[in-house]
Amino acid sequence: MPKFIRIDMGAKAVKIEECPEKYAGLAGRGLTSIFVADEVKPTCHPLGKNNKLIFAPGYLTGTSAANSGRLSCGAKSPLTGGIKESNTGGTFAQRMSKMDIKALVFEGLPEGDGFYVVKVTMDGATIEEAPAEIIGMGNYEAIKVLQAKYGPKVGVAIIGPAGEMRLTAANISFADPQSNIRSAGRGGLGAVMGAKKIKAVVIDDTGAPGVTIANPEAFKDASKRFTNALTTHPVTGQALPKYGTNILINILNEAGGLPTKNFRTGRNEWANNVGGETMAAVIESRKGKTTHGCHAGCIIRCSQHYNDKDEKYLTSGFEYETIWALGANACVDDLDAIAYADREFDDVGVDSIETAVTVGVAMEAGIIPWGDAKAMLNLILEIRKGTPLGRILGSGAGALGQMYGLSRVPTVKNQAIPAYDPRAVKGVGLTYATTPMGADHTAGYAVATNILKVGGFVDPLGKEGQVELSRNLQIATAAVDSTGMCLFIAFAILDIADGFNALVEMINARYNLSLTGDDVVALGKTILKAERGFNERAGFTKAHDRLPEFFEEPCAPHNVTWDFTDEEIDEVFNF
Amino acid sequence: MPKFIRIDMGAKAVKIEECPEKYAGLAGRGLTSIFVADEVKPTCHPLGKNNKLIFAPGYLTGTSAANSGRLSCGAKSPLTGGIKESNTGGTFAQRMSKMDIKALVFEGLPEGDGFYVVKVTMDGATIEEAPAEIIGMGNYEAIKVLQAKYGPKVGVAIIGPAGEMRLTAANISFADPQSNIRSAGRGGLGAVMGAKKIKAVVIDDTGAPGVTIANPEAFKDASKRFTNALTTHPVTGQALPKYGTNILINILNEAGGLPTKNFRTGRNEWANNVGGETMAAVIESRKGKTTHGCHAGCIIRCSQHYNDKDEKYLTSGFEYETIWALGANACVDDLDAIAYADREFDDVGVDSIETAVTVGVAMEAGIIPWGDAKAMLNLILEIRKGTPLGRILGSGAGALGQMYGLSRVPTVKNQAIPAYDPRAVKGVGLTYATTPMGADHTAGYAVATNILKVGGFVDPLGKEGQVELSRNLQIATAAVDSTGMCLFIAFAILDIADGFNALVEMINARYNLSLTGDDVVALGKTILKAERGFNERAGFTKAHDRLPEFFEEPCAPHNVTWDFTDEEIDEVFNF
Repeated sequence: MPKFIRIDMGAKAVKIEECPEKYAGLAGRGLTSIFVADEVKPTCHPLGKNNKLIFAPGYLTGTSAANSGRLSCGAKSPLTGGIKESNTGGTFAQRMSKMDIKALVFEGLPEGDGFYVVKVTMDGATIEEAPAEIIGMGNYEAIKVLQAKYGPKVGVAIIGPAGEMRLTAANISFADPQSNIRSAGRGGLGAVMGAKKIKAVVIDDTGAPGVTIANPEAFKDASKRFTNALTTHPVTGQALPKYGTNILINILNEAGGLPTKNFRTGRNEWANNVGGETMAAVIESRKGKTTHGCHAGCIIRCSQHYNDKDEKYLTSGFEYETIWALGANACVDDLDAIAYADREFDDVGVDSIETAVTVGVAMEAGIIPWGDAKAMLNLILEIRKGTPLGRILGSGAGALGQMYGLSRVPTVKNQAIPAYDPRAVKGVGLTYATTPMGADHTAGYAVATNILKVGGFVDPLGKEGQVELSRNLQIATAAVDSTGMCLFIAFAILDIADGFNALVEMINARYNLSLTGDDVVALGKTILKAERGFNERAGFTKAHDRLPEFFEEPCAPHNVTWDFTDEEIDEVFNF
Repeated sequence: MPKFIRIDMGAKAVKIEECPEKYAGLAGRGLTSIFVADEVKPTCHPLGKNNKLIFAPGYLTGTSAANSGRLSCGAKSPLTGGIKESNTGGTFAQRMSKMDIKALVFEGLPEGDGFYVVKVTMDGATIEEAPAEIIGMGNYEAIKVLQAKYGPKVGVAIIGPAGEMRLTAANISFADPQSNIRSAGRGGLGAVMGAKKIKAVVIDDTGAPGVTIANPEAFKDASKRFTNALTTHPVTGQALPKYGTNILINILNEAGGLPTKNFRTGRNEWANNVGGETMAAVIESRKGKTTHGCHAGCIIRCSQHYNDKDEKYLTSGFEYETIWALGANACVDDLDAIAYADREFDDVGVDSIETAVTVGVAMEAGIIPWGDAKAMLNLILEIRKGTPLGRILGSGAGALGQMYGLSRVPTVKNQAIPAYDPRAVKGVGLTYATTPMGADHTAGYAVATNILKVGGFVDPLGKEGQVELSRNLQIATAAVDSTGMCLFIAFAILDIADGFNALVEMINARYNLSLTGDDVVALGKTILKAERGFNERAGFTKAHDRLPEFFEEPCAPHNVTWDFTDEEIDEVFNF
């Protein structure tokens, strides 16, 4: 019977229970969101004793299914004030599944200033004082200290100095198979962990029974067909393995949807200098790795090892969105500077999207000049120091905009808008506006159909078909985020019907179920409704499903505006 | 016919129109709130081009009626995100009424970085470049420069450096009859004025026709009876003239409702050191003035001139709430230090309540030690410098709480909770929770009935009768705020029926109307519904009508908690 482990940081008590009946059929985002909607008081302070943080692997995590090793983390977000699911690669989720742990739940707040390490083993969990040396330490080094203490193979979830300071852009970092860093980035869940004074969670799966498959033959067959879909599709089989997500720089620039200079235009002249093709060449010339997986069993391998000029490892999980935010949006024409920034974000423990967009807003405020790579790096280092400026930067774009009296602040529900201009890629604009997560491209990645022509084609510049596109993708995504699958598998299963069927069949074979495609859609809807219900009780209304008014300005080169009416936007969640 | 003057800062154009029909029967808060609800897009950015700032005198402003010289200022608040009416003394309102100007409306945003002065005369209004020397200058000196340029008798509305920086605690300051400073303090309206690049509005009433009274005899009779009520009542006739509002320090301390150390307890040992009786003795010993009016015709005269040790003028309008926030809540046992802080708040142009509460939150964060007067003064000076720390402080308690990861942050709708503990003075707690203004004691001052036994008595520690008390006071206040009367007249008219009748009769005599007491109640309800309607369209729900969860802690000495259910709170606006 799968275990539910509750760690009460207030009482310093651990409770191991059977998975409550009401959560029995859930996993991943479905579990974290329905749990938060059920157990967290919607009007609570996100950093107070009534918030709860939950980690949950997906339905297929721990199996041999390709790309199934993602972890969902959920809580009330201190950045948005709404519900949050943030998911990540690394080794944590697979260990949990193999140990038959359905969820780790962190509750309450301890007295005092000390930080703790929560250690999870087959015997349960213990709460230990954190080693003094790792307090204030960056994540790269702190993971090494913890793996030296708890064993080189333990999984680690950790907060950096930003999480210790409870900054609203703080993320939770997870050691990946090389002990590098993967992040549950968005929404400030690191601040929730910091408020609970949990510096790290280490998980040791020694003695774990592993995952049981109800119908191994059916699983094997489906798994093979699923893998085939991933390797066959041009996005998951070729583009992402070769160039990573940064392949998108030139594609979006060409499409006129690459937000430039804090969302002033959708195209610029220097994009290619920091684009995926350039990056792949740099990586190869410095003997890095152009392709690499964030968790065991990943076959898309969109990550990389980006080395510095001395061929020393600098960063991985070096994503398009981060490179865009500093490269195009902050006008920094220097891939190495961006890579150093990305490493610093991972090490200090902040969401690289939120913080990089905030850098652009800092330039808007005149704190540093547009495009000044050196000033940008110095600015980012303020976060680690905990200076007032660093705290503003680590609190996200909305906070910096408020402190500097700006109205050109690209956020929805106080979360920074990512790398696709909503005027020129209108489908994803609807996702930004309406997802319960705050501006988040991954919640309904209409870029796929608007730009990449995956799952059909909907003209990115027009309004027609966008409401249905965003709605359907949000529903599908909520379901995919429950499987433990990397979201990128969606490229393949949107186009290859047998891939989708194989995914459902793997779940059925794992649990001896007979779900259909309709059940998957129903699950997605249930999750979204629970999330939206939480947000409504927390005080969100349709008025929060709006983009900032500066998107009324035309966006070059297509000179398109954000022209959806409120009524049209509100149709996205009419299901 | 009363004039409506619209100053479009975008087009640099002035439009003088007859008062639109829909606003004809309105004045003061009734006019500003119904105007904002009607003309401002609820989801607009408060610092963007779609917000509008309106100044409006009350029904009786400009007449000889005692205490009728208050001005209402309205806009969408950058602090709360909701509707805001903030009102002030000074000389501005009376000039407007005498010039037959019903409202000044500031719209749009200019291009460029330059600041402007709007000059209002009987010929209309002009937009002029602001003198370069006053940019970045404190309000005391800048008012002198403007009165040297535009004439010693002009009325002045001005923003300080905080408003120029568009900080969300920035206020609008108004020259009083001695060219000292009165403020439309709460809700950040100075940031709205700063966004519109209006450094100051000067008003020259040379040639003004003055106010016409339809029925002079009836007015004279009613006015006399009204004055009699004010001078007869012990609060308005004795306590406030003698000690000012700071008389409340010892009263609230005795009642156990004086929030101490960031709302940890309701009583402390040092309160009397900064109390009203002590303050009056200090003022007298330094040859200041213990009693003084904020506008011509005030007979309550609760203001004062507080001099420094060298008998030099330091500050006036030195209110209980500011003295409480630094004295009890930040544990600063030094009245002179608090007076210097109050002067600095006025000079730099920030709401003294918001900012002084923020100082307590800064101590909670460990930025400076509790009770350290010198550190407090140095901290406050950061605002003027525009440093990151100063910007955080000038952005209010909620902002500082976010940047420093705190959950003990006393705000409602992101506006700081003032000087009465809601657990020990439960009626005002309901007002904090439910008023559309964000935490604001003046919106429904249940302290009167809970503590001062004005308008009857409702036990401050119990729940019984509080919902009706807060509701009725909020309705009455919305109406009183429309008359141009100082809110303190309410003490007298709540207890003395003829005083209330006389107030209604003055309005009738002024305009040749036949309003009754019921009409006044109906007006109050109409205003509150308009305000709440705006907030609902801006995204507010009942979930925003809640106090921070730390008020679940018991408050000494009575060990009372905030124990209203959500359903009980929601009854306040059930009318």
